[in-house]
Amino acid sequence: MVTSVKEESSSKCFNGYQKVFSHQSVELNCKMRFAIYLPPQAEERNCPLIYYLSGLTCNEQNFIQKAGAQRFAAQYGYIVVTPDTSPRGCGLSGEDEKWNVGSGAGLYVDATETPWNKHYRMYSYITSELPIIIEDNFPIISDKVSIIGHSMGGHGALLCAFRNPGKYKSVSTFAPVCNSQKCVPFKEAFDLYLGPNSESHKEWNAMELVKNYNGPPLCILIDQGTEDEFLDQLYPTEFTEACAESRVSVILNMRDGYDHGYYFVSTFIEEHFKFHSQFL
Amino acid sequence: MVTSVKEESSSKCFNGYQKVFSHQSVELNCKMRFAIYLPPQAEERNCPLIYYLSGLTCNEQNFIQKAGAQRFAAQYGYIVVTPDTSPRGCGLSGEDEKWNVGSGAGLYVDATETPWNKHYRMYSYITSELPIIIEDNFPIISDKVSIIGHSMGGHGALLCAFRNPGKYKSVSTFAPVCNSQKCVPFKEAFDLYLGPNSESHKEWNAMELVKNYNGPPLCILIDQGTEDEFLDQLYPTEFTEACAESRVSVILNMRDGYDHGYYFVSTFIEEHFKFHSQFL
Repeated sequence: MVTSVKEESSSKCFNGYQKVFSHQSVELNCKMRFAIYLPPQAEERNCPLIYYLSGLTCNEQNFIQKAGAQRFAAQYGYIVVTPDTSPRGCGLSGEDEKWNVGSGAGLYVDATETPWNKHYRMYSYITSELPIIIEDNFPIISDKVSIIGHSMGGHGALLCAFRNPGKYKSVSTFAPVCNSQKCVPFKEAFDLYLGPNSESHKEWNAMELVKNYNGPPLCILIDQGTEDEFLDQLYPTEFTEACAESRVSVILNMRDGYDHGYYFVSTFIEEHFKFHSQFL
Repeated sequence: MVTSVKEESSSKCFNGYQKVFSHQSVELNCKMRFAIYLPPQAEERNCPLIYYLSGLTCNEQNFIQKAGAQRFAAQYGYIVVTPDTSPRGCGLSGEDEKWNVGSGAGLYVDATETPWNKHYRMYSYITSELPIIIEDNFPIISDKVSIIGHSMGGHGALLCAFRNPGKYKSVSTFAPVCNSQKCVPFKEAFDLYLGPNSESHKEWNAMELVKNYNGPPLCILIDQGTEDEFLDQLYPTEFTEACAESRVSVILNMRDGYDHGYYFVSTFIEEHFKFHSQFL
């Protein structure tokens, strides 16, 4: 059965279309939105697919409005899917009280604790449910899929790649949360979603997961601004060292003077598309 | 005396800086913000300047977040100034009630009617006060200045150019309001700002002003989406004909399938920088 998706908006952009769809999610038990850019090439043939996972407080709009990625998606002929970052409007206590818990803060994990476990299953949504919806409805090449993430979404992209060897051809991140257990804003949400036992948190920590990665060769690109206001929460250097020990290839670019926001992302997004084009 | 400006934000972007400043405006009798992109070249030498005037409901943020212009400002070495679109917080009755009157709807005119005439003088702000502030504080080449505008800002850019022959080397617009007196959302604000006598409105109508233009040769670029939801309010073809009669050079590009928004602007912004580079 093909999952029903509803087109919410569509604007021509770089000769393709930037669209937003909504659908009822089974994993998340609520209505969800995702954005999708269809390059002009998608009118005639199937295209490689890039997922872009956004950061805390974002929804499906931030990246598509601010990063300028459509220019390069059109140039390379890639479909780009930008999911929302959490379930919304589930009526859970505390769902909309804090920027780092609940709406906008799915953290790309599968919650195990009530009441969050009824809805907060963003990991399964991103890696299982959404890919089927995309494949059923859009002209993708199903074995040419890569993933990009920013901040919390960088953490998400790394989780998705390490936990699903071979699923993504390449991974790139902007200012990723590399060691989720040392990221202070994550701790409160992890305790609520996963319970206080830190052993369970390790399953959702890129720094821990890379130690046991033994899938196909994986190449990771990390861009990190030196003036990032959250840099002390991110641990890119330690993560790069952990990757080296696990023989996972990492390119870490420290970008002098750049901060954590979308002016940084927009500056380097072209290089991320170029990076993924080596693998797609 | 150099006008005091206060830096509100600064982010590195394409090796230059996207900044926002605030200052007390004499013309508008309130605190105002403007955005300015300083390309990397501005660290070493003076640079040409482009003003970008935004549309109804916008402030200084929309263009700098959504258009992707910094890439080309950095490439060409242009400083880009993006003013807000109206006074704010003046405490006028009706100031914040309608999207087409008051805040976000300065219409780039000088109001003559009370109470608006104490604050709503965006034309004088854009053409007289702000240029002095920019010249006093930033490394511009003062005789290399061009102007871009979108929608209401396209109307504004055309007003500024026709009323100040020679002040701007070139003008380009996205989906401009070419005949302000036929634009329904403008009518209500014109009546309030300028009084009901339509003769006074003609002074703020590009279609009327072009008829009497006799300044130096002026080249205007217009990009217009064919799926623009406001196209019946804009009159680009009629305006182009009026320009031809006044021997003002116009390039009108009808862009198949594009709408009125920033996905349209971002698609063609590169061509606008290329256009202006012929004159700057």
